[in-house]
Amino acid sequence: MSGSTSRPAQIPAVRADFALFQPMTTRWADNDVYGHMNNVVHYGLFDSVVNGFLIRKGVLNPTDGDTVFLVAETGCRYHAELAFPDTVTAGLRVARLGRSSVEYAIGLFREKADSAAAEGRFVHVNVDRQTRRPVPIPDKTRAVLQSLCQPG
Amino acid sequence: MSGSTSRPAQIPAVRADFALFQPMTTRWADNDVYGHMNNVVHYGLFDSVVNGFLIRKGVLNPTDGDTVFLVAETGCRYHAELAFPDTVTAGLRVARLGRSSVEYAIGLFREKADSAAAEGRFVHVNVDRQTRRPVPIPDKTRAVLQSLCQPG
Amino acid sequence: MSGSTSRPAQIPAVRADFALFQPMTTRWADNDVYGHMNNVVHYGLFDSVVNGFLIRKGVLNPTDGDTVFLVAETGCRYHAELAFPDTVTAGLRVARLGRSSVEYAIGLFREKADSAAAEGRFVHVNVDRQTRRPVPIPDKTRAVLQSLCQPG
Amino acid sequence: MSGSTSRPAQIPAVRADFALFQPMTTRWADNDVYGHMNNVVHYGLFDSVVNGFLIRKGVLNPTDGDTVFLVAETGCRYHAELAFPDTVTAGLRVARLGRSSVEYAIGLFREKADSAAAEGRFVHVNVDRQTRRPVPIPDKTRAVLQSLCQPG
Repeated sequence: MSGSTSRPAQIPAVRADFALFQPMTTRWADNDVYGHMNNVVHYGLFDSVVNGFLIRKGVLNPTDGDTVFLVAETGCRYHAELAFPDTVTAGLRVARLGRSSVEYAIGLFREKADSAAAEGRFVHVNVDRQTRRPVPIPDKTRAVLQSLCQPG
Repeated sequence: MSGSTSRPAQIPAVRADFALFQPMTTRWADNDVYGHMNNVVHYGLFDSVVNGFLIRKGVLNPTDGDTVFLVAETGCRYHAELAFPDTVTAGLRVARLGRSSVEYAIGLFREKADSAAAEGRFVHVNVDRQTRRPVPIPDKTRAVLQSLCQPG
Repeated sequence: MSGSTSRPAQIPAVRADFALFQPMTTRWADNDVYGHMNNVVHYGLFDSVVNGFLIRKGVLNPTDGDTVFLVAETGCRYHAELAFPDTVTAGLRVARLGRSSVEYAIGLFREKADSAAAEGRFVHVNVDRQTRRPVPIPDKTRAVLQSLCQPG
Repeated sequence: MSGSTSRPAQIPAVRADFALFQPMTTRWADNDVYGHMNNVVHYGLFDSVVNGFLIRKGVLNPTDGDTVFLVAETGCRYHAELAFPDTVTAGLRVARLGRSSVEYAIGLFREKADSAAAEGRFVHVNVDRQTRRPVPIPDKTRAVLQSLCQPG
């Protein structure tokens, strides 16, 4: 998935690979006709764990901040099924922290499982709200992100 | 909203009006361009609290049961805004229990608020999985539903 | 559904009951585990036909207008199943036009069907963007809405 | 994005890179608080163009077929914003056709634009419905997929 790990793609991540954990409830409509969580929903959980973290830490104000984070690239590998009404825990780690961009690694864990059911990558670019051009990540935000660079 | 209460429509329900409570996490994409939870999302929470309850009680098997509950009618009144990253608690009550149908009343509560931000009604009809014709609600299911007829 | 028609609730609306029609494509994830469009999705289509109409007519600017329309109440009756990959046509009519609020009636039609698979009501209140208090609907907007008061 | 093209990642695909085109309507709730299509929605469109194609060609029966396609990996690069009420056209191509898996390349085009606003990859694995183990793609399906191997 990314150059940030030497683990082969087919071996799922485990909880120890992540720095922060966020439980999330699933919804009836998350399940598609196959009775499992539709592949799209995983991205909705990625978005939520990342932005929820930034908002709670006070470094993202989606409605009024001068800069916001826009998404440049995302990806997901699906190892096992998730399904409503499971509780899913998202594990979050910063895999790469650049000047104006940050790449997150995310694992989704079913109930008490230690092996990730899905693994995502999520690349955010810090941009000026008006021009939508990249700007450097502010120091305060950078410090918050650095706290997620080391797993466990 | 329904004949099951004499409360005027503009006065929000409170927690004491409901029999069961289910906390639910919100998602980034729940917020629309106005920065609050889009009116559609509320229905996704209604669906989830009702079906989640039935599944956990062992009276709904969405993939293999002989009968399933289909939705005949829904409605929502919006009293106040909800927004990601709030936790929302859904309150659930059975407002009317018929031969093959059941009407639920649902309240959505923001964080610790006692006054409902939104109130829903949700009418389920028990149908044969194949023919999709109404069939009487089985006794075991009826007993489970009766446990939600009284608030508090 | 509303006082605006004398048709009994169990008799579906037909195309002639609406003033404007908007075809909409369905999506894979619209179908839930029962293989039909989840009851929540209908509300996403209601939202889209109403706001899409207002935006195209130039009377709603969701990101910069001084006033916006917020949703006060919604409801839906489900007569027949819809499902991906159907094309669904939404029929729209203004059922009631008040000083600061407007109630829409919406029908969702499967492919070429003349009988509505679902019928919605959707109440919008015009509010000041900052205070979110109701304000009168501007004359230009009112004229646009009046064009939808008569079916056919 | 994939080994199937020598184009650098930052140069968007164009319509001539795809074999089949499917217009799709957007929805109000597709736009998030930033006033553009949330990054998650793109995946819902990928899912829909791929499965819609397979269903229309008669080689996927999601509710009754002996085999179904499950998603093993997905990814998206975002080049430009999309937003409701745009019409989005999805371009589809088969980038790699294996024994039991197929990788699609997808481009999303805003209105009449020739340059993709987003590019996705989407890996489907053909599995037995019951065991969910990979099985070879049937000949009829393979022929249908081969028709998408050449752009334009």
